Amino acid sequence: MAGDCIFCKIAAGDIPGDIIFEDELAVAFRDINPQAPTHVLVIPRAHVGNASTLTEADDALIAHLMRIAGQIARDEGIEGSGYRIVLNVGSHGGESVPHLHIHILGGRQLSWPPG
Amino acid sequence: MAGDCIFCKIAAGDIPGDIIFEDELAVAFRDINPQAPTHVLVIPRAHVGNASTLTEADDALIAHLMRIAGQIARDEGIEGSGYRIVLNVGSHGGESVPHLHIHILGGRQLSWPPG
Repeated sequence: MAGDCIFCKIAAGDIPGDIIFEDELAVAFRDINPQAPTHVLVIPRAHVGNASTLTEADDALIAHLMRIAGQIARDEGIEGSGYRIVLNVGSHGGESVPHLHIHILGGRQLSWPPG
Repeated sequence: MAGDCIFCKIAAGDIPGDIIFEDELAVAFRDINPQAPTHVLVIPRAHVGNASTLTEADDALIAHLMRIAGQIARDEGIEGSGYRIVLNVGSHGGESVPHLHIHILGGRQLSWPPG
């Protein structure tokens, strides 16, 4: 765990989160400021940085997280209607918490451009 | 190749694309309707559906594509300023071409929500 990382604390159960899925490697919970009827974050339990830092050592983890995103879309009933997956990196990306997280947004029409 | 898939045709060189990276598994090219100063798509050469259809058999491929996205951000000089990675699924997601593709957008501030 990284000392004051809020997502590490949610994954560890030290801060409450509206968790809808968890396994040994990952946790998924609802965004506290939802931007769509379904807005879920998928994070690794381990403190991994953002998507720009991924190396081959992270291949299994990122693939696992992406499959979980698909599973959550099915569970949330938005697979048929569609959804958007978003990963923010750095200032221009709007990265708010420096712990890798995948946004899943659905339940409404997402517009273009994506921000 | 899927018969009339435009991304399969770009990957095969049958339709011109502004290709900036390619390897045995993947091709990256500039979006024809860019929504940011840097707007690149990373696609697998193989005709894989969207992110909702990923299975364990696709783990190595999606991880490879995500690492290429990071490499392109470095090559484009937007790693430091930040960027956004977007994958659209279905109608609500705004999926335009049914061939897996990762959008990379950077070079300007991306707003929130992401569409």
